[in-house]
Amino acid sequence: MAIQHTVVFRLVHPLDSPESAAFLADAREQLTSVPGVQHFAVHRQVSAKSALEHQFSMVFDDEAAYEAYSAHPTHTAFVAERWVPEVAEFQEFDFVDAA
Amino acid sequence: MAIQHTVVFRLVHPLDSPESAAFLADAREQLTSVPGVQHFAVHRQVSAKSALEHQFSMVFDDEAAYEAYSAHPTHTAFVAERWVPEVAEFQEFDFVDAA
Repeated sequence: MAIQHTVVFRLVHPLDSPESAAFLADAREQLTSVPGVQHFAVHRQVSAKSALEHQFSMVFDDEAAYEAYSAHPTHTAFVAERWVPEVAEFQEFDFVDAA
Repeated sequence: MAIQHTVVFRLVHPLDSPESAAFLADAREQLTSVPGVQHFAVHRQVSAKSALEHQFSMVFDDEAAYEAYSAHPTHTAFVAERWVPEVAEFQEFDFVDAA
């Protein structure tokens, strides 16, 4: 079953700063290079009921593709080198179709 | 600009119970009857990194359509009569395309 993997987050950088734009562009370039990543999208989170400001969303065909992405060296390097130092706060959610 | 309104939530009912199924079915029926609601979807939230269990997602053409939905008596009655008593925990997020 297809899985939509999402993470809603707030960067340490000011919204719409050059540093924020660079993070989003680099994330798109690096993460979409990982096999299995489909429908990669970047959204702004605009509800005042959350302090988080962006969302990454991507779709995997199945759990195996998701696990291969998580373990892929491009993904783990991105997490270590960019995500950890540049993300102030985040929450992951993964969605599947309801039964 | 189109807005994707989402809420991730956990019901007071056990997952996959008849009460849970009734809540989800009634929500779909009632909320999709409100003008302006597009692409209504119910998802299971399956990441172990969140205790929330379901997501409602819907799309509005613009902020005016979203506000009309929020104020619509079918929506406000659903919130008062079903959401408040049957939802244990929730988080809203609204997404727009990144600039």
